[in-house]
Amino acid sequence: MVRPGGRSARVQQSVHAAVNELVAEVGRDALTVPMIAARGGVTPSTIYRRWGDLRELLSDVAVEHLRPDSEPADLGSLGADLGAWAEQFLDEMGSAVGRTYIRDALLGDQDGTNASRCSDYAAEQIVIMLDRAVARGETVPPVETVIDQVVAPMMYRILFRPSVLDTAYARRLVDSCLRGAS
Amino acid sequence: MVRPGGRSARVQQSVHAAVNELVAEVGRDALTVPMIAARGGVTPSTIYRRWGDLRELLSDVAVEHLRPDSEPADLGSLGADLGAWAEQFLDEMGSAVGRTYIRDALLGDQDGTNASRCSDYAAEQIVIMLDRAVARGETVPPVETVIDQVVAPMMYRILFRPSVLDTAYARRLVDSCLRGAS
Repeated sequence: MVRPGGRSARVQQSVHAAVNELVAEVGRDALTVPMIAARGGVTPSTIYRRWGDLRELLSDVAVEHLRPDSEPADLGSLGADLGAWAEQFLDEMGSAVGRTYIRDALLGDQDGTNASRCSDYAAEQIVIMLDRAVARGETVPPVETVIDQVVAPMMYRILFRPSVLDTAYARRLVDSCLRGAS
Repeated sequence: MVRPGGRSARVQQSVHAAVNELVAEVGRDALTVPMIAARGGVTPSTIYRRWGDLRELLSDVAVEHLRPDSEPADLGSLGADLGAWAEQFLDEMGSAVGRTYIRDALLGDQDGTNASRCSDYAAEQIVIMLDRAVARGETVPPVETVIDQVVAPMMYRILFRPSVLDTAYARRLVDSCLRGAS
């Protein structure tokens, strides 16, 4: 939707940067749209027009932070790749910062677009690992099964069910998912 | 915490009732604390003292609506009980009203208490079904496994991943969970 390098992309970039700077300086709860506009070099009405309100802007910024910045490591087998990825996912999403981003992403998300983007990021990473495994000749579960059996339980517990969320838990989910596939 | 019949319980009851009436009359987005206080026959400061702000109050009201009002039906087998329960859970939580309650419950939940209560409600219902099945001599999975494999995927998709959420999906989750247990 946003043409890279276009004005719209520049506005998004400077407003997101302003939010990130101000969160670091004054804290998330002290943010206001006029403050962000001043820092970002745009008018408040530009922000209201484009994002509706502060919560929607924070949701967009959160989703940017939740976007994976690299491909999952290739460790030679689907079990190793998915296990390491799940450990890292749990570690990042379960951290205080990760939880705040997830909440922001969900809560300022009127139409569900941002929540879907978070889920699509995970699905894209999983597909990369599954494709690699298929190329190795491994038997792999469907991506939606990995979402149900590995991603969903981690995210559910992060949001709803305080539990021991450690690497052993992440590995257990992956092992039982792959056992079911083979 | 709240002694039934005590003043605190009466305040909660009348304020929750006021919220529910006003949501029906003026809509959720028009609610204000003074409006709720007037309808509930308490002072706004009573609401601020007890709930902090409107969002936390709406979170408490949402959790009340998410509380199961009956035990899961006894249909003679764990597969039948859990399948019917999962269908109903998906139907209720996935509805427009259910999604709003889930979002409200999460959104105004500073310390995670309300999200945990939602999850505990599901766990309590599942434990009832598992205990019945054990009494019948059935092999049953641990409650946390049912949470991971049946509840979590439904909730994850409701919140993050628009999918075909139909009775077949709910039944599939239950069947694969029980296959793993036996």
